[in-house]
Amino acid sequence: MNEEAIDRSQHGHLVIIGGHEDRENSKEILSRFVELCGGAGSRIAVITAASRVPDEMWHRYSTVFGELGVDGMLRVDVPERATANDAELAAKVRECDGIFMTGGDQKRLLAMIGGTLLDEAMHAALKNRGACIGGTSAGASAMCGHMLAEGKADLLPEKGSVSLGAGLGFVQRVVIDQHFSERHRLARLLTIVAQNPYLQGIGIDENTALVVERGVGIEVIGGGTVTIVDGRNLISNVADIPGGATPELIDVRLHLLPAGSSYALPEEINHPHQLPPQSTRNAPEALTDFLRNVTKRNPVS
Amino acid sequence: MNEEAIDRSQHGHLVIIGGHEDRENSKEILSRFVELCGGAGSRIAVITAASRVPDEMWHRYSTVFGELGVDGMLRVDVPERATANDAELAAKVRECDGIFMTGGDQKRLLAMIGGTLLDEAMHAALKNRGACIGGTSAGASAMCGHMLAEGKADLLPEKGSVSLGAGLGFVQRVVIDQHFSERHRLARLLTIVAQNPYLQGIGIDENTALVVERGVGIEVIGGGTVTIVDGRNLISNVADIPGGATPELIDVRLHLLPAGSSYALPEEINHPHQLPPQSTRNAPEALTDFLRNVTKRNPVS
Repeated sequence: MNEEAIDRSQHGHLVIIGGHEDRENSKEILSRFVELCGGAGSRIAVITAASRVPDEMWHRYSTVFGELGVDGMLRVDVPERATANDAELAAKVRECDGIFMTGGDQKRLLAMIGGTLLDEAMHAALKNRGACIGGTSAGASAMCGHMLAEGKADLLPEKGSVSLGAGLGFVQRVVIDQHFSERHRLARLLTIVAQNPYLQGIGIDENTALVVERGVGIEVIGGGTVTIVDGRNLISNVADIPGGATPELIDVRLHLLPAGSSYALPEEINHPHQLPPQSTRNAPEALTDFLRNVTKRNPVS
Repeated sequence: MNEEAIDRSQHGHLVIIGGHEDRENSKEILSRFVELCGGAGSRIAVITAASRVPDEMWHRYSTVFGELGVDGMLRVDVPERATANDAELAAKVRECDGIFMTGGDQKRLLAMIGGTLLDEAMHAALKNRGACIGGTSAGASAMCGHMLAEGKADLLPEKGSVSLGAGLGFVQRVVIDQHFSERHRLARLLTIVAQNPYLQGIGIDENTALVVERGVGIEVIGGGTVTIVDGRNLISNVADIPGGATPELIDVRLHLLPAGSSYALPEEINHPHQLPPQSTRNAPEALTDFLRNVTKRNPVS
């Protein structure tokens, strides 16, 4: 690694998208992703590993990134784990300015790339080059350390109905769900948080993204809302009830951040960053821990 | 009113039902209602005023109450407001042990009986005789002072999308919604609470009831959950955004009480009451204000 190549003014970004982002009209979210990668001249890897239709995914995103002016695209299909351990491919990804993970199945994505050279290369690009890591739908869920692997979206929380797996760990101490309001997934996010109050739940609506500028702050863009479920003060009988039962949950803290919400960490408000001006509002105390946590640099080193 | 008839050991109950209560099998909720009225020998008024098909409603509830052994039923149809101001009818209702309001439209119910002699008679029966007031669906929504009159059940909260009306006021400082999880009504309850943090939101699932023993405590029965939305610590931009926009909501407190949850007020735990034994668990602090509020005796005198 050439240390001189490191640009410390680039904090590195995550663009965590709830699925069904607009690709036809304003392309707001994908435009922002490209901008955070460095604009039209940037090198962007598209990882289709979550999907069983990689051709379709590559066509979809190479088209839209092309329309947004990007010509330095790298197609990364991962038909088997060995591909993700190809040193030459990993070296190319390590030099990218942006890495985008398509939708599909986050379990497939992790089965193919979790713990591989490709996984390492993504972290290195983020850490060393301030690259922008984007993911939509399954690609969003995969970003956290504890990944929502499977779960019913029932009307009510249900003990044991949701299972976690090991994710890519770009953010820690959170669990991310997508297509959130559209698929009525609050009950399953509450189920996870009830059983794992260590994790804060993040539910991202379709055509909506949580943009994280590492070490600095967050912004919500697109058309919907980011829901945060904080169970750290939770009082619950979940440990004592049988599987399949609905737990009593008292004192869950719920935050809804619609598109346009943005907050910088208090100590970063007057430093250079790429968040919009309204980010400099002081974040309410109830949101501060979430903000510190989700913006944390290199949680896995 | 014969003061000697007042039985102070009868605290008076509310049975607030989220609609679609079981009437075929265990009849758990309606059985409890009858029991709290005083059992098979009690006099129960059935108010069909919310419905435009009162014959069907009377048939439905006279059948099931009959199956539960009640033979002293009073049919109260209210085709026009004048009926609800009939002194003879009101006097009969005043002497009932239980009063049940069917589903339909809560706006119709209030338009017919709000502020009439019949309304007064219901309050008098509760206050003076410790009667049990039951209501399902529209009949549940109508029980609070600030009644959810109309509102879209959108995916996200939306400023101005829900309107309140004047309800019957058996409970104050809350707003009650029904068919809650089944119809995905959290967004509309959040909308109300965001605009009216004075009110705590209560969402009751189908075949689920919040049983209130006034001055004593609460119990959840049936098959679903009662959701409580507490916005008293809310930080929001709702006052500043245009109508139709989604407000930012930070620090909403959310409680889910599934069937089987029950709590008595701390000072009532060792006094005689009709709540189940598990009610004597100490209510968590986060729930205490709700508990005090919803069990308050004679909020409107």
